Amino acid sequence: MVKTKKFIFARRFVGVPKEDDFTVVEEELPPLKEGEILCEAVWFSVDPYMRPYTANVPTGTTMIGSQAARVIESKHPEYKVGIHVVGHFGWQTRSIVDIDNIPAALWLSKPFIIPDFSGLPLSLALGALGMPGNTAYFGFLEICKPKPGEVVVVSGAAGAVGSHVGQLAKIKGCKVIGFAGSDDKVKWLKDELKFDAAFNYKTKDVTQALKEAAPDGVDCYFDNVGGTLSSAVIAQMRERGRISVCGSISSYNEDISKIPLAPIVQPSFVWKQLRMEGFIVSRWTDRWEEGINYNLQLIKDGKLIYRETVTEGFENIAKAFIEMLQGGNVGKAVVKA
Amino acid sequence: MVKTKKFIFARRFVGVPKEDDFTVVEEELPPLKEGEILCEAVWFSVDPYMRPYTANVPTGTTMIGSQAARVIESKHPEYKVGIHVVGHFGWQTRSIVDIDNIPAALWLSKPFIIPDFSGLPLSLALGALGMPGNTAYFGFLEICKPKPGEVVVVSGAAGAVGSHVGQLAKIKGCKVIGFAGSDDKVKWLKDELKFDAAFNYKTKDVTQALKEAAPDGVDCYFDNVGGTLSSAVIAQMRERGRISVCGSISSYNEDISKIPLAPIVQPSFVWKQLRMEGFIVSRWTDRWEEGINYNLQLIKDGKLIYRETVTEGFENIAKAFIEMLQGGNVGKAVVKA
Repeated sequence: MVKTKKFIFARRFVGVPKEDDFTVVEEELPPLKEGEILCEAVWFSVDPYMRPYTANVPTGTTMIGSQAARVIESKHPEYKVGIHVVGHFGWQTRSIVDIDNIPAALWLSKPFIIPDFSGLPLSLALGALGMPGNTAYFGFLEICKPKPGEVVVVSGAAGAVGSHVGQLAKIKGCKVIGFAGSDDKVKWLKDELKFDAAFNYKTKDVTQALKEAAPDGVDCYFDNVGGTLSSAVIAQMRERGRISVCGSISSYNEDISKIPLAPIVQPSFVWKQLRMEGFIVSRWTDRWEEGINYNLQLIKDGKLIYRETVTEGFENIAKAFIEMLQGGNVGKAVVKA
Repeated sequence: MVKTKKFIFARRFVGVPKEDDFTVVEEELPPLKEGEILCEAVWFSVDPYMRPYTANVPTGTTMIGSQAARVIESKHPEYKVGIHVVGHFGWQTRSIVDIDNIPAALWLSKPFIIPDFSGLPLSLALGALGMPGNTAYFGFLEICKPKPGEVVVVSGAAGAVGSHVGQLAKIKGCKVIGFAGSDDKVKWLKDELKFDAAFNYKTKDVTQALKEAAPDGVDCYFDNVGGTLSSAVIAQMRERGRISVCGSISSYNEDISKIPLAPIVQPSFVWKQLRMEGFIVSRWTDRWEEGINYNLQLIKDGKLIYRETVTEGFENIAKAFIEMLQGGNVGKAVVKA
């Protein structure tokens, strides 16, 4: 008899999610049918998008989220026992997956068979070699189209995606300026990731910071944060600047009916002919492996540094999720099952 | 001895411009040198962009602006006496223009020789067959790339550019919804220009209006207004919607150090993968005649209605400018010299 433990999304979030918005239950799983596989979670991913995404998730269902899992039983020819996959199985320790009848998902639909990482940790399948890495690769390069010598600003710069984008920008020959929410993060960005400049937006005025670090203006802005910080960056952009909107974490804990206010951006758009585009990484699903291979090569060549904030234990996922939403992570937040 | 009268930009605007921010002077003009032409104003243009643009104009100089003028004397082979041109000559009745030494301008640099309008009024060279018409043609079609059946929203819909864009959208097979600032303008948009819906944003909630007129969402938004109205439109956009930012008239009379606040737009950008681009029509200077010919054909075919708000007399330009900035015009605001 196979059992699974799961976090139920029990109560709709108000403001910052709380641990008792979830309940943990244990269930028995039925025997596998033809076309199904049984997966055991190895790593869970907690990501910013999950906060707003739950607005459309019914309460009483398993909390959403992706995981890196091992196939422990299989009645589907493509998925052999022993392989590892990334899937949207939610916060549960074991999952039965009906491969050919999976509902539409935010990025990959079928479980993604994790390729050979040349000895790198499996958890990277949820970070630099997974969705966040591909978010950085496609969302920055395809939308900002950075050119050597240009000035790139990244908000949420110490997160999984932001820290990756900043390094890609350096590799492309750009000057990189990061904004993050603590002095420790800023130190990491400057000392280890070699950002040209980095600032704690909580203690340093963003406009002043950019006047110092980018006196001639900003060409590209990769935005994870939105709101007032982004208005300040946009006001410092240069003619024909490009903005890639990846996230808006500054507003994710707000009630959707109370959209925060920020200085308007349209005057800068007109006078500097700016372009801004939001994206969801599923747009590049058909090029998924290209992104992973690109990032894998960078890591093997020592050109891309990754960092993980690891929480131990399935029972601590909600805690890890809540801490990540409050900026508690550096790099990718993952939970070891 | 040739004289000119001119409006001097005497005092920097604070809030809504006032008539006594200008002083009118009369000057004698020197004899023409080789390469110069003498032009006599026939029509003056007053346009929204002039308000923010003056932030970079030194006080004590001639007020900026374009005009349709007749060449009355010429020492340049391309510009014959008797032809009409559009030029950035400012608010003055007669201008000496050194053709090969003209400073960079917002759109055309050299005076543009007005082509044969097939009997249509010369003033159209400042409106539907000039900068505003080309702003509509290029700024809407190139940036929004509207497809038949799509829903297009236009703000500032009763202005020179907005009323033109809405009609282009109808010609492209779109459903068109306009927002304007008076019931009379709304009536004109619906009754004469055949907009599918139009609303007075001062008396009708924008979100509610769009829920009624575009229950499935908005595909394209041509924005002349910015600010809170635009945040409301953007929140009602559909997946992969496109926004062309032409102007931001809601903030033009504000002190630049006090940028107005509006609900943030980034969450919509992420979840709906929206794209927004600002432009200045000079981007398409090398295709200028294409736009004019396109619009001219539409007028000749009876497919494009134009309307002008005409003020008589050079001495009333400032008054016409101030009224236009407060929404006093329907269609193009022009001043007869």
